[in-house]
Amino acid sequence: MPRTLKLVLAYDGSAYVGWQRQTEGQSIQGLIEEALSRIDGAPVRVAGAGRTDAGVHALGQVASARVETTLDPPTLKRALNAILPTDIRILTIEQVDDQFHARFSASSKTYQYWIWQGDVLPPLIRASCWQIARRLDVAAMDAAARRLVGRHDFGAFQSAGSDVTSSVRTVHSAGVDAGAARSAWFTPWSEGDAEVDCGHPVVVQIEADGFLRHMVRAVVGTLVEIGDHRRDADAIASLLERGDRGEAGPTAPARGLVLVRVQYRRPVAPDAGSR
Amino acid sequence: MPRTLKLVLAYDGSAYVGWQRQTEGQSIQGLIEEALSRIDGAPVRVAGAGRTDAGVHALGQVASARVETTLDPPTLKRALNAILPTDIRILTIEQVDDQFHARFSASSKTYQYWIWQGDVLPPLIRASCWQIARRLDVAAMDAAARRLVGRHDFGAFQSAGSDVTSSVRTVHSAGVDAGAARSAWFTPWSEGDAEVDCGHPVVVQIEADGFLRHMVRAVVGTLVEIGDHRRDADAIASLLERGDRGEAGPTAPARGLVLVRVQYRRPVAPDAGSR
Repeated sequence: MPRTLKLVLAYDGSAYVGWQRQTEGQSIQGLIEEALSRIDGAPVRVAGAGRTDAGVHALGQVASARVETTLDPPTLKRALNAILPTDIRILTIEQVDDQFHARFSASSKTYQYWIWQGDVLPPLIRASCWQIARRLDVAAMDAAARRLVGRHDFGAFQSAGSDVTSSVRTVHSAGVDAGAARSAWFTPWSEGDAEVDCGHPVVVQIEADGFLRHMVRAVVGTLVEIGDHRRDADAIASLLERGDRGEAGPTAPARGLVLVRVQYRRPVAPDAGSR
Repeated sequence: MPRTLKLVLAYDGSAYVGWQRQTEGQSIQGLIEEALSRIDGAPVRVAGAGRTDAGVHALGQVASARVETTLDPPTLKRALNAILPTDIRILTIEQVDDQFHARFSASSKTYQYWIWQGDVLPPLIRASCWQIARRLDVAAMDAAARRLVGRHDFGAFQSAGSDVTSSVRTVHSAGVDAGAARSAWFTPWSEGDAEVDCGHPVVVQIEADGFLRHMVRAVVGTLVEIGDHRRDADAIASLLERGDRGEAGPTAPARGLVLVRVQYRRPVAPDAGSR
């Protein structure tokens, strides 16, 4: 009897063409399908909650797959992690209701965008930060980000080439924080020792029921212009109203974007369908 | 007139044979000397405060060099960072007294060792953590680490092949912390969402007036055995007393070790010599 699995996974997207299989280049989806197929002895297809672009990372991407293997989830997780390269890791696996689909069952997704504000990008985090040397007005960025909350037409923040029919989405929360991300990992830069004060992280976080193509990166490009005082914080309201992509800021680089979490409203245990 | 510079630098040591120039392979010292030599138009030698091994990282290594260039420090820093690969970054440059030597003038150095305690190593930090799936007794490790403080013969924690005449060093502080390192960078793993609870960092920090070859890594190997309850916390005292390397724990992997800071007692401004 085939069964449906929910996999939570993390990856460093630097080396990949993105989540989705492409005609050329290695994709994360492709490598996970290959690994599952090797274990199952037959082709396995997986669906991902977020189709992250080339260079975009994940701390909590979710995938669903229908498999024949009877391996218990912890054993399957160890087997998959033994096959996969170390820049892709399966964090958890659980058996779920057959109705579960990683993308269509998701109620919301949370993305973070990591900016390193400082004149030098620390080498150990260079794969996952956009470095900005200029001093950003983080309070203005945070105030502007909060204007995104609610049900709006996000057409101004959508890249061409998208296949969606509607650009209306609901943003549940949005904010920008320069304080929370300080930690012992950055001690040498956060202890006020002027000699090695080379910057600090600024984290943009957005949770929404869905995201348009390049939406977070277009929002971040716009927020940075607001943080630079090149654009008014009120700009967000008129961008949402007018919906013209040409008026929003540039698309921020892929490397700073991280899919951190996917939320599901309904329980996804195997017996959930009968409740 | 040649002048003496103090450079503070950070690097991801993954791709290098270590700080020191070797007959084969790329060293961090070698790349910095090449970059400075290109700017100076003549060979430049640099001295490093800590001779970090292959795979060991730095957040605050210090190097000294005598140069002819009259470029002001901020311009020289930009020029060096433009030449160097992105896994080596110059954080600050200042002109110092000609007596200054990065290694011999240092009063102490601080190393951290980053352990990821969890069954899966997060891809984005895989280059700089030793992953341990077993649950470690961090309080026991911290108590044991504190026994290292003071002036002792650290011969039990020294690898063969060292050229030092004495293995007596003074440890100013030592401790192990599982809490301080939690941060927004690890939010998905620290918010109590069981689904993605794949571990947390454990950071060992040691400040000493000097370190023997592989000393921090041998200490960490021993502390982990204590955290595993395979060895008593009192073991440190008898190891220090007996000085037998065969009795201490194994040498922890290089990838978790980070030179975070080098301290200098005396002012190192150009006029310090006349004060």
